[in-house]
Amino acid sequence: MNTHEARLVALRQQLKHQNLDGFVVPICDEHMSEYVGAYAQRLAWLTGFGGSAGTAVVLADSAAMFVDGRYTLQVRDQVDARFYSYEQVPAVSIAGWLAMHAPADARIGYDPWLHTRGWADAVGRALAHRGGVLVAVDSNPVDTIWQGRPAPSAAPAVPHALEHAGIGADAKRAGVARWLADNGCDAVVIAALDSVAWLFNMRGSDIDCTPVALAYALVHADGTADLFIAPEKVTPELVAHLGAGVRIAPREGFVASLEGLTDKRVGVDPERSVAAVFQALERGGATIAALTDPVLVPKAVKNPVEIAGQRAAQARDGAALARFLHWLDRVGPQGEQTELTASARLEGERRATNALIDLSFGTISGAGPNGAIVHYSASEATCRRLEPNSMYLVDSGGQYRDGTTDVTRTVWIGPDAPPADVRDRFTRVLKGHIALARAVFPAGTNGAQLDVLARQFLWAAGLDYAHGTGHGVGSFLSVHEGPQRIAKAQGGQAGTAHALLPGMIVSNEPGYYRAGAYGIRIENLVLVEPRDIAGAEGEFLGFATLTHAPIDRRLIDTALLDAAERGWIDRYHADVRSLLAPQLDVADRTWLNAATAPL
Amino acid sequence: MNTHEARLVALRQQLKHQNLDGFVVPICDEHMSEYVGAYAQRLAWLTGFGGSAGTAVVLADSAAMFVDGRYTLQVRDQVDARFYSYEQVPAVSIAGWLAMHAPADARIGYDPWLHTRGWADAVGRALAHRGGVLVAVDSNPVDTIWQGRPAPSAAPAVPHALEHAGIGADAKRAGVARWLADNGCDAVVIAALDSVAWLFNMRGSDIDCTPVALAYALVHADGTADLFIAPEKVTPELVAHLGAGVRIAPREGFVASLEGLTDKRVGVDPERSVAAVFQALERGGATIAALTDPVLVPKAVKNPVEIAGQRAAQARDGAALARFLHWLDRVGPQGEQTELTASARLEGERRATNALIDLSFGTISGAGPNGAIVHYSASEATCRRLEPNSMYLVDSGGQYRDGTTDVTRTVWIGPDAPPADVRDRFTRVLKGHIALARAVFPAGTNGAQLDVLARQFLWAAGLDYAHGTGHGVGSFLSVHEGPQRIAKAQGGQAGTAHALLPGMIVSNEPGYYRAGAYGIRIENLVLVEPRDIAGAEGEFLGFATLTHAPIDRRLIDTALLDAAERGWIDRYHADVRSLLAPQLDVADRTWLNAATAPL
Repeated sequence: MNTHEARLVALRQQLKHQNLDGFVVPICDEHMSEYVGAYAQRLAWLTGFGGSAGTAVVLADSAAMFVDGRYTLQVRDQVDARFYSYEQVPAVSIAGWLAMHAPADARIGYDPWLHTRGWADAVGRALAHRGGVLVAVDSNPVDTIWQGRPAPSAAPAVPHALEHAGIGADAKRAGVARWLADNGCDAVVIAALDSVAWLFNMRGSDIDCTPVALAYALVHADGTADLFIAPEKVTPELVAHLGAGVRIAPREGFVASLEGLTDKRVGVDPERSVAAVFQALERGGATIAALTDPVLVPKAVKNPVEIAGQRAAQARDGAALARFLHWLDRVGPQGEQTELTASARLEGERRATNALIDLSFGTISGAGPNGAIVHYSASEATCRRLEPNSMYLVDSGGQYRDGTTDVTRTVWIGPDAPPADVRDRFTRVLKGHIALARAVFPAGTNGAQLDVLARQFLWAAGLDYAHGTGHGVGSFLSVHEGPQRIAKAQGGQAGTAHALLPGMIVSNEPGYYRAGAYGIRIENLVLVEPRDIAGAEGEFLGFATLTHAPIDRRLIDTALLDAAERGWIDRYHADVRSLLAPQLDVADRTWLNAATAPL
Repeated sequence: MNTHEARLVALRQQLKHQNLDGFVVPICDEHMSEYVGAYAQRLAWLTGFGGSAGTAVVLADSAAMFVDGRYTLQVRDQVDARFYSYEQVPAVSIAGWLAMHAPADARIGYDPWLHTRGWADAVGRALAHRGGVLVAVDSNPVDTIWQGRPAPSAAPAVPHALEHAGIGADAKRAGVARWLADNGCDAVVIAALDSVAWLFNMRGSDIDCTPVALAYALVHADGTADLFIAPEKVTPELVAHLGAGVRIAPREGFVASLEGLTDKRVGVDPERSVAAVFQALERGGATIAALTDPVLVPKAVKNPVEIAGQRAAQARDGAALARFLHWLDRVGPQGEQTELTASARLEGERRATNALIDLSFGTISGAGPNGAIVHYSASEATCRRLEPNSMYLVDSGGQYRDGTTDVTRTVWIGPDAPPADVRDRFTRVLKGHIALARAVFPAGTNGAQLDVLARQFLWAAGLDYAHGTGHGVGSFLSVHEGPQRIAKAQGGQAGTAHALLPGMIVSNEPGYYRAGAYGIRIENLVLVEPRDIAGAEGEFLGFATLTHAPIDRRLIDTALLDAAERGWIDRYHADVRSLLAPQLDVADRTWLNAATAPL
């Protein structure tokens, strides 16, 4: 019996002990985080699945793995088909599958700290049709059987200095207090880790690539707050930083505090709070107001200090990327590098800035056909060499105290010139990138309206890309941050209907992927800013590009560019040169001058 | 006491007789039609309001007129402020206003044949908060007091020949029967007049500009149907045309038939059926399935015969428009024409084709500043002269047996050249028109995604237009036809999320309006069609332009066009020339050759 079979057997025994006919194991934490700490990697421990999103449902006689389109191949490699069937969401829903496969009158367990109430309601209704019931467990059966489960990180929470945050935490809480008054609420639950981090000007290192600390908060109408956080994470510096308006309590005290809000009207974001929060409030007799997290928009709209910090981080990060690209240009054609040596080199350049706190996500380093796998993660098993005369895509970013970066460059590994069809595709992606970067639009416009600008030149050739065009980015916070998004409205990704507001940062990352051959993506971060136009009728906005790094001139077919596009590239490269050159040594600078020469 | 005051007083007396504290008077008919017959123009009779959309709410001591942004000026001119307050929807809703202004425990009446059930539910809920109730009246109190109210049109319903319809009515009903089987229904209510007309290959002349006959239909699972229509409208030819599968019944029999559907599962479109239909089905004990009208998409997706007919109608209509434009070019600079003489001349050219059945909507003939009023309707009171050296906008269309046209041209009335700023604005509108006309997009794309293509060049100059970019058009049916629409998704217009399907016709009509100065709109109808692209990955679509008429070359600033745009205009004008020239006399043809010469 192999490891994962043994774990499945143990879980089924434990379910019997807990009088359950099944259990649902997601990848999630108590904060509905996109990325979770090692202590919450229950699905990987149970099944071996290494993707970032997925859910297992374990019944007495069968089990199923639910993954989305990104992971349909990976799940086959990593999860044993003898024990799990594979199901693709959203075509198959967990609720629908359980309604078909759970025995009549089944008691199916779920951990209310790992699911939204909306999810629990939907699955509960599906089970009820055949007499079944969804049961919130008091203790997670996976945790009971998981020997050597990592403890949640004990890393200290640290102050995020005003020189980077731009607005004091007292002022931020006062803003939430005004919001509470406007919405007739006595208190609001802040459960999302990046919202807590932003609100208290606090950072941490409890989750890879996202500098947050595991904590909950309750903000009250008087502007004071309760912060629920493990005592070992609280340093004297943090206490002093938080000040008199913040009462610090152990994380375990959160539920009792929720239960104590009797007769209070309490705001909770149903998308960003787990079912257990609602259940605790209901037990205590609070009135629940389902409202969007009031930190969401203020966090997304960067203040001038955050914008200045972001520009500084981008310049530093761009110089590191330029050094890497120079190295790659030099050694690439020798054919001795691999996806892993290349990503290690790039990380080394970022670390050499002495300002890197962490990567902002796992580097996507895709050589040749691996570049066509949108969420590719190189491993020893899959790692390819960077072959001479091939395409290489690298999507990477850093966490710096002054900003979060996310940049994709696609380069040609010489020595020969790239083929015409590759240059055609690259140039179409580039034209879309430029069209979005140059867009001017009235205030109130959302990302769904602009998405076509980035796709139009691929569409004209009968091509497209199966991902969004842009996501929000935090300030030394999550590399994927809402509420805004640029994508097809019907693509099922949240945020495309949210207006793009001045101060928001969003990625501009059209691509093209030829399965089995190569991938192309050109990604810069851009800032939404007001546009002063003589004679404008109303308020208009545009984008300022924040990311500065060379775009591979060898891959551009200038015959496909019009004068305005050519002018954009030349101006962009001139900006890259003036911003990065002062940071580079002579050799790198010489390379950069050539790499950013006018077309 | 003037006429409208007297009518208001009479209505209030009648409300007392009917034990009502208020009544709601919309512009609507029993089919939720966009345009209604004279017999249903209750709001105009009561208040003097001449717009196409609006609602009055009359209480014992106060009354309010609800109009949208198009009519905020017109309502002040036409409706007496001493008796009616003015409210703008959607900022103020009727439900919200009644909740504030109706007395507690009020009994507010509504005619269930003139409102959707959704509307009645929302208003009923709003009244219930203060103990009030919304009461469906058995007889409309406006009709009771309206002396000399026009009878509904008694015009005959006529067959729509297969040579124009392309698909026989039996086959169409068989399609609905399949839909009934797929949806587990026994019958479906077809209430929209254009759906009834399309389904039975029947036309009429009961509503200005829309060739429909007042009728309801019930289609059953066996493919037979009941058609409820006034007996005087039914000719022997129609009976023969409808055939054995259609049972003809008087319009009055509709309610009893609905009540007789006991225990049947009946499809009803809640957007296209009035509340009274639901109430009759509920009284009779039917199970109601709220489903979209099954005729909607088949009607919108034109078949090859309809497409060929549309092309023929467009060529005929374009020749009439070209003759008019030639005349205008000749006489316009003399300064003796007016908006009304010009629209009469254009209608005369269309009638001279001997194929015109009706206009497809009231011509919008706007000189100078009147061109900036998007839904302008010239009257003796407002009619302006076409001044030398000014702009003139004409939006018009015809109903022909083979197709429905809708075209807008904006021309410069000489003799001097137009000013640079006007040419700049015109050219930006034109560039948007061309960008949409040339768009290529994957199957599944909707109109909200493409809208920005038409606006982008205006946006770049800080300009925009406050209307949608394109609406569907019927085949010898409604000039505004769903479900598709090209517009801002957040603009509140239905249909922007509906995929554009091959065979759909949609208008392409960006514009620009400088209040108090001039209006610009360039409108062609386009057909969605498959695009064969070498190497395409998936199914791609594009537009074929159906409308052919010269675009004023004097207003085009060629310096703002790129080579592809210039090529598009020259090719379009070459097509106009080859299509229209054979229909024109020598003088018109000579003018056309110059008007369509390459830029």
